[in-house]
Amino acid sequence: MTAAFDIAAIGNAIVDVIASAPPAFIEGEGLTPGSMTLIDEARAADLYVRMAPGLEASGGSAANTLAGAAGLGSRAAYMGKVADDELGGIFAHDIRAIGAHYATSPLAGGPSTARCLINVTPDGQRTMCTYLGACVEFGPADVDAAVVESSAILYLEGYLFDPPAAREAFAKAAGLARANGRRIALTLSDSFVVERHRKGLLGFIDTQVDILFANESEICALFETSDVRAAQDAIRGRVEIAAVTHGAKGSALLTRERVVQVAAEPVETVVDTTGAGDQYAAGVLAGLAAGRPLHECGRLGSLAAAEVISHFGPRPEVSMKERAARAGLVLA
Amino acid sequence: MTAAFDIAAIGNAIVDVIASAPPAFIEGEGLTPGSMTLIDEARAADLYVRMAPGLEASGGSAANTLAGAAGLGSRAAYMGKVADDELGGIFAHDIRAIGAHYATSPLAGGPSTARCLINVTPDGQRTMCTYLGACVEFGPADVDAAVVESSAILYLEGYLFDPPAAREAFAKAAGLARANGRRIALTLSDSFVVERHRKGLLGFIDTQVDILFANESEICALFETSDVRAAQDAIRGRVEIAAVTHGAKGSALLTRERVVQVAAEPVETVVDTTGAGDQYAAGVLAGLAAGRPLHECGRLGSLAAAEVISHFGPRPEVSMKERAARAGLVLA
Repeated sequence: MTAAFDIAAIGNAIVDVIASAPPAFIEGEGLTPGSMTLIDEARAADLYVRMAPGLEASGGSAANTLAGAAGLGSRAAYMGKVADDELGGIFAHDIRAIGAHYATSPLAGGPSTARCLINVTPDGQRTMCTYLGACVEFGPADVDAAVVESSAILYLEGYLFDPPAAREAFAKAAGLARANGRRIALTLSDSFVVERHRKGLLGFIDTQVDILFANESEICALFETSDVRAAQDAIRGRVEIAAVTHGAKGSALLTRERVVQVAAEPVETVVDTTGAGDQYAAGVLAGLAAGRPLHECGRLGSLAAAEVISHFGPRPEVSMKERAARAGLVLA
Repeated sequence: MTAAFDIAAIGNAIVDVIASAPPAFIEGEGLTPGSMTLIDEARAADLYVRMAPGLEASGGSAANTLAGAAGLGSRAAYMGKVADDELGGIFAHDIRAIGAHYATSPLAGGPSTARCLINVTPDGQRTMCTYLGACVEFGPADVDAAVVESSAILYLEGYLFDPPAAREAFAKAAGLARANGRRIALTLSDSFVVERHRKGLLGFIDTQVDILFANESEICALFETSDVRAAQDAIRGRVEIAAVTHGAKGSALLTRERVVQVAAEPVETVVDTTGAGDQYAAGVLAGLAAGRPLHECGRLGSLAAAEVISHFGPRPEVSMKERAARAGLVLA
């Protein structure tokens, strides 16, 4: 069956609030640098008061990835829950403005649209505190079966293992995709998410996942090791393709037979690493959707990640299609 | 009487929505490139649907200037009306986070917080469409007499001539400042504002204004001439200091006796000119508040403008105090 969409993504629909912070601020707030912490509404309000002036931008890991892939030409669809409020309106506008199909009904009379308070230290590292708000109401009924069944790749973020209703939606969507012979891609999202849901994630990976995205700490957390090489060996063969990012050192695309090493794209000044992993996944998925060979998929990932860390904000600010073309990477 | 604040600013309290747009989009929407157009709520919603994904950031001309001046060390206070909604909360957070005193009560049950839809073309030029929302409810009762009376400089934006209640507030604040021997600064804001309110603005300038900010098209509109030199001659002596910006060519600080030419600071890539005039005014006002000579005030203005046009967003993203210090400009 031909596909109406290249990628259908399900994720937490979040608006980012991005501010600069000295390292002492992260420490003073009791946060782990570079991590993502779930917080409640009261803590979000409390933390926000002490943060520096911010920039607001639509975020959400899978939505960022989808925006990047759409910018590279992928036909995209998104599912995720916002509230019927101003930030929800901004999220919905932005995901549609990148050309994605988005029809999840907004939540009325419940928690507000999710926000992620992101403090960025001068070295470009981001520390995230997420108030999930309306996201916790995303459930199986929000999974659009027709969209999932007609998308070549279903892309899911590991963060969805946190809200229980979303975890159910996750399982429903994966079942629909599998039944229709679609590929399923998952990102582990965060090492603390992996710690919280290791068993569930491993079971899901073994039974459902074709393409897995992880960084070093996430893949190590999954296999309870501090040896990245051992963790990489452990994932090979369990999924068709595992894409493991190594920060500034690049990434590796692993299949049962092959290891494709991918160099990172040089960046003059790292301003804000928010979205680096999301955009790497965008490049790889857009390449896979277009049927490109693995080394080109990896190169697209490196290019997209390099663009997004050179400015504040989690999504590309330039035409990545043009930038990819200049690098000799033309997607059909 | 010593002053509790260096600068008290009154302005339209606005959240910016900043998006990239091709020149054809500006034309297709019937907009004048580089201009500011007032729009109603329905037109704002309609235009937004067709805009590219955006970044949201606290804006408002006088608020941007105040943020810049506070970043250079000025003690700052702000008055302006937001609604009791999410964007209003963001605006209030950001103005307080720069260290400014801000106590204007938010509007409940009326129009929403003002937003400025800003389309930025690849040459960095911004075209603005403003829905004033809650701003139109800012009136004389919102002028905090104690703040105005204890601020060395009262800074007003010409945009306030548009909402009638704000115009009244403008007059009240100016009267309080004058009665307490404070200096009054005004920016003309926009040539169309000048066209709409030329007589009122000229009368206000002649009776109340000590420091005037204008760009070439605004100062020409004020004196109904296309000759910038003639317009500059016409303003000299009517105010203590007139600061006229010439875009990439720099600016001139004009007094009755002197003309201080100020070079523009070189910028590698102009990304978005939003806030250039606001930040120029911030540098000049911070310099004046610190008692620096005119050529240093101008240099501070050029530095601040150069920073803000090198990225999306209307306020500085780096420490301008450090940048000024590196340029040999240390404010007390």
